[in-house]
Amino acid sequence: MKPFADLARFINPVNVVVVGASPRPASQGGRLYANLVRHSRLPGQVYAVNPAYNEIDGAPCWPSIRELPDAPIDVALVIVNAGRVLDALRQCVERKIPYAIVMSSGFSEAGEAGQELERAIARLCQDTGLHVYGPNCPGFVNVRDRIGMTFSPAFQHDLNGGGIGLATQGGGLGRNLLQGLSHGEGVGLWFSAGNEVDLEIPDFIAWMAQDPAIKVIGLLMEGIKDGRRLTAALDLARQRGKPVVVLKVGHSEAGARAAQSHTASIAGSAAVNSAVFRQFGAIEVEDLDQLLAVTRLLAVAAPRPGSGLCIYTFSGGTAALATDIAGTAGLPMAVFTEQTNTRLRSLLPAFANIANPVDTTADILRDPEAANTCLRVVCDDPNVGAVLFPIPMDYGEVTDGIARSIIEVSQSTATPIIPVWMSRRMGGGFELLERHGLQPFLSISGAIGALSRVWPREGSAPLAAPAVPGHSVGAAADGTAAPRQFSEAQAKAVLRRAGFPLPRNEVAGTARQAAEIAARIGFPVVMKVASPDIAHKTECGGVRLNIDSAAAAAQAYDSILAAVAQAAPAARIEGVLVEAMLPAGGREILIGVHRDAAYGQVLTFGLGGILVETLRDTTHRMIPLAPADAQAMVREIRNVAILDGVRGQPPADLDALTALILQVSEFASRHAGRLVELELNPVWVGAPEQGAIALDALIIASGELEQNAIEPEQTA
Amino acid sequence: MKPFADLARFINPVNVVVVGASPRPASQGGRLYANLVRHSRLPGQVYAVNPAYNEIDGAPCWPSIRELPDAPIDVALVIVNAGRVLDALRQCVERKIPYAIVMSSGFSEAGEAGQELERAIARLCQDTGLHVYGPNCPGFVNVRDRIGMTFSPAFQHDLNGGGIGLATQGGGLGRNLLQGLSHGEGVGLWFSAGNEVDLEIPDFIAWMAQDPAIKVIGLLMEGIKDGRRLTAALDLARQRGKPVVVLKVGHSEAGARAAQSHTASIAGSAAVNSAVFRQFGAIEVEDLDQLLAVTRLLAVAAPRPGSGLCIYTFSGGTAALATDIAGTAGLPMAVFTEQTNTRLRSLLPAFANIANPVDTTADILRDPEAANTCLRVVCDDPNVGAVLFPIPMDYGEVTDGIARSIIEVSQSTATPIIPVWMSRRMGGGFELLERHGLQPFLSISGAIGALSRVWPREGSAPLAAPAVPGHSVGAAADGTAAPRQFSEAQAKAVLRRAGFPLPRNEVAGTARQAAEIAARIGFPVVMKVASPDIAHKTECGGVRLNIDSAAAAAQAYDSILAAVAQAAPAARIEGVLVEAMLPAGGREILIGVHRDAAYGQVLTFGLGGILVETLRDTTHRMIPLAPADAQAMVREIRNVAILDGVRGQPPADLDALTALILQVSEFASRHAGRLVELELNPVWVGAPEQGAIALDALIIASGELEQNAIEPEQTA
Repeated sequence: MKPFADLARFINPVNVVVVGASPRPASQGGRLYANLVRHSRLPGQVYAVNPAYNEIDGAPCWPSIRELPDAPIDVALVIVNAGRVLDALRQCVERKIPYAIVMSSGFSEAGEAGQELERAIARLCQDTGLHVYGPNCPGFVNVRDRIGMTFSPAFQHDLNGGGIGLATQGGGLGRNLLQGLSHGEGVGLWFSAGNEVDLEIPDFIAWMAQDPAIKVIGLLMEGIKDGRRLTAALDLARQRGKPVVVLKVGHSEAGARAAQSHTASIAGSAAVNSAVFRQFGAIEVEDLDQLLAVTRLLAVAAPRPGSGLCIYTFSGGTAALATDIAGTAGLPMAVFTEQTNTRLRSLLPAFANIANPVDTTADILRDPEAANTCLRVVCDDPNVGAVLFPIPMDYGEVTDGIARSIIEVSQSTATPIIPVWMSRRMGGGFELLERHGLQPFLSISGAIGALSRVWPREGSAPLAAPAVPGHSVGAAADGTAAPRQFSEAQAKAVLRRAGFPLPRNEVAGTARQAAEIAARIGFPVVMKVASPDIAHKTECGGVRLNIDSAAAAAQAYDSILAAVAQAAPAARIEGVLVEAMLPAGGREILIGVHRDAAYGQVLTFGLGGILVETLRDTTHRMIPLAPADAQAMVREIRNVAILDGVRGQPPADLDALTALILQVSEFASRHAGRLVELELNPVWVGAPEQGAIALDALIIASGELEQNAIEPEQTA
Repeated sequence: MKPFADLARFINPVNVVVVGASPRPASQGGRLYANLVRHSRLPGQVYAVNPAYNEIDGAPCWPSIRELPDAPIDVALVIVNAGRVLDALRQCVERKIPYAIVMSSGFSEAGEAGQELERAIARLCQDTGLHVYGPNCPGFVNVRDRIGMTFSPAFQHDLNGGGIGLATQGGGLGRNLLQGLSHGEGVGLWFSAGNEVDLEIPDFIAWMAQDPAIKVIGLLMEGIKDGRRLTAALDLARQRGKPVVVLKVGHSEAGARAAQSHTASIAGSAAVNSAVFRQFGAIEVEDLDQLLAVTRLLAVAAPRPGSGLCIYTFSGGTAALATDIAGTAGLPMAVFTEQTNTRLRSLLPAFANIANPVDTTADILRDPEAANTCLRVVCDDPNVGAVLFPIPMDYGEVTDGIARSIIEVSQSTATPIIPVWMSRRMGGGFELLERHGLQPFLSISGAIGALSRVWPREGSAPLAAPAVPGHSVGAAADGTAAPRQFSEAQAKAVLRRAGFPLPRNEVAGTARQAAEIAARIGFPVVMKVASPDIAHKTECGGVRLNIDSAAAAAQAYDSILAAVAQAAPAARIEGVLVEAMLPAGGREILIGVHRDAAYGQVLTFGLGGILVETLRDTTHRMIPLAPADAQAMVREIRNVAILDGVRGQPPADLDALTALILQVSEFASRHAGRLVELELNPVWVGAPEQGAIALDALIIASGELEQNAIEPEQTA
């Protein structure tokens, strides 16, 4: 894996050069130059390069980088036609300029010629160690130090620095976030590296994870180029205690992957992305306003662990509605201490509701001092982790007063007060809250949605760092052979040698053999066609259950071959697998492995059997898994009650189940170079001590998978 | 059922009297009087009544209603101490004043004495025909005719009338909606009747359904007093083509009802409410901003049926994000005509995305004329039902120009343009859109959420009016006997006589009988303990499956009795039911009936068998059902794919299944007086032509349920 870039001189450059600087104020080169010279606080020089000018605004302008005076330059800002970019970058290498930001467009977003140019930049970076940010991007903004290496005319307006770090792939939406964080805690660094030919989102995450002035990292991603680098960066952020909030575009893409196994077709890449974010502790959101709100809550208004929410308002209907929405979201409500109850009772009229939710009634609004005291009382309660204060309407001076009260009390309490401005009339109270960085939510459900993403849950202490992924990535295997599907019998033989728990079985080549094998195994047995060409055996009449005599076994042999000959005449038939049948009442689950293009090997766990694609109740992890991952997966599925036992059933053998999940992870990891897909479905899971046994197995691999085979490991 | 009130003179009164009028401007009586005299456009007189004054503001004040001059008075507005309300109302009756609004508090919300007062008002209404609105309410506002029978000081500020009708139970949140509808289409009538002692939400719905100036009805409800009146009113609205949007508080209430059957415990009242709203065509929302947005979309910006959504913006990242969110919500995207494509291609730069989503790129913003033309082109496309226009940031004059463009084009097209103001900077563009009644959404997901609730779906033409519910309501039965649970054998006997499809069965009293019956029925059989005291037979060892010989049947008889004797020693045992066992592969579903306190008999349909409480995949309808209801229910469950057939299975016999649902509805309806709960679970549903057969049945009823029994019907 390519190491993360050292961005120290990139973030805080001394001298920079603008290649394509222009005296025309409306041009991109002119705006970029003006942002640096006029609106930034750069400690050193801004050199201008443009063969068309001798000077710009009275400062000298050089014809090329090559001809610049001899000074150490940290970053070259390149905003020339795509065709001239490579030459400029070569001059950067000559002049030992370590970083270049290429803002020009006309690269991989613009057809084949542009793609070739971009590949040439990539090669230059690899060969020389030059770091390129871009191309096709708005630049980089170090808001906290006021350094705008960007052509955006909005740079000078969005200068509210702070502890929030942003990395976005598109530029436009990042501006939305900056505008949303104009007051209170602002944005410290904003990366937006466009096509990401060299420096990528993981580099920025890793840098911000180690930057002491960054508290929270917000990400807006459209695609994921290298899942292993991304997860390594997320892991670094988690180790440093920096929360990461991510909005990933691409949830609705049709998971149109053609695949033999359920595992690969269920695990659409959106589901895998979400699972990986969860695995590495990143908080996923669905819209831009949520990204803003959750990031901001984590930076300045995170609820206290071990506490509950207090809902506080002056309208009974609003209190009921907010409590209902919080309850549906599963947020814990605070139980007040007796002291709080006593003090509220003395402050509020008899008909006010002093239990949580607190409905002060509108009376208290006439007495600002009492209103402040009352709000402070709930903030002081040790059981209150955050106060949600919905304001249902704009009442002019009355709601201005409420805003002032929230601002005042906020300044003297550690408990976050989270206002909700519910009216569309954005009155003075809204403006006051906004200006003081209290950033009211605009709907109760928006506030609850954000709070429920950040509320510290019991037992949600940062997970132990997982086993560090070190295995092969994605599509490429070790190249020995084309992938082929094993027959069930072959797959089970491989798995049996690898020590997996499987039912007793043998392949019969004749009806008579089937009868003999069945008698040897003991009745009842199940019989299944053995063919590498048939993935779904039930559909083509290739399965018989509950066979309870030798005669029935012989008969089943013939009838299976007849049915399959009709349904799949071209399939190669290796015989019929005769197998011990497990007692009814076992839970049927699925464990599968497939290769994800971004993250490499991914393990899927979920409900299995015939309903697997209907219920689609599955969860995912990158391989290899730590024991804690396997235990967490088992509890993540929606219908976990099925494993706990319903209607008097005993629970499932969860020890055996998690052991099997880990065994699959270990097996897949060991065969990472050759294994393309593995699916155990159904796995029969009995009651405690009865074990977890794979009843069916599918393997697709290139080459053989022998136990303990030493395979070449791929370096990503 | 109490008929709906005629509200003509209430909505548009000529003369009114204020009982409790006051010259003190800050008092409730003073504000109410001022709202009527100064801020309303009442065609007649406002009489003041208060024994403490002889005149108010130069107008005469009378000591009591009794002593008023002789003129027809339409509405009495009562704002005196709770203890004096009843006397005032009696005087209304004497003076033949048909309506009174009681705003005073101190009634059922304030303890036992207040509840007694409220009951006395209810009796007075019943005895005399007086209609009372309130008590404990802010009054009624006829915005469109500017009549404010309310003490709210905000009345004079929220006077933007229009075609939206509102009925809210609490007062505060209604004001939020009025403030949100200050521009563009406003609120015509706003009912907020507090404790609803007499006039109730259903009266207001029914009135607005027939009011030609009301286009859409918005409801905010905390509780439901009489479900049958509510559904009758909703039905009236549907017949008149008036969409109803409802926010019902109370989703998170723990469904703590103790019940023998799964049906009653699954059907928490929030689920039943939601199902009933769906049954009667009302659109349910989850928050106040959604109530506002959906109501407004239906009033002025409903998408054209048979069309798709166009996403139109000038930022590529925004286009991708919006398209992703729309795709996840399942909104159909419009496919442009060739003409649209051609025109867009000629208007936009080569690198713009002209397919839907349209990303014009920012270039076009410099040319307002071209921007207007381009927006008009997509609005003119016949395949476009609505245009979603997200604006990711505030760019001062640039975004002001976008707002003007949206306003201009909106005025000349029938296609709704729906702006999303995504920035928290509420700049000039936001103000412009707001002032012109275009009401931008504040997040993409908010806009998509609202649009997906109103988008006309295929085949979602207004449902045929369902069979009009006319049976008993809720708790009360016919009072003949205490409810008792039938044993499975008794229940099946009743159902068999009523013509339900059941497997062959008989009750055995000895092991020998069991063997004989099993042989008569044919193997395999299933055997189950017969006891009226055991609801969940499996849990106490009372069930044996797959019995394939007479000897095994005799043995099973003994072993069942032994197991049950241990697990439930006090249970009365009637014997063991021996029953034909149906072939494997049938789908297991549940059909149940229980009594809901608000809506009376409710039918539940869903996935059955052992997983019923785990999957909780059910849907509900009020009884009686129309055939279209049964067909719709079958398609409403999440895992409908199980009925359609998974992995090569044939589909389930849906004809038999819907017939069975209707048969249960009819049976429950016929026995409404006595039937408390009925549950068929599992029902075995075979492949087409194989039928739907109830394998287990639970009945709780007061008294006997004989076929064709004539029972007294309760009139609600």
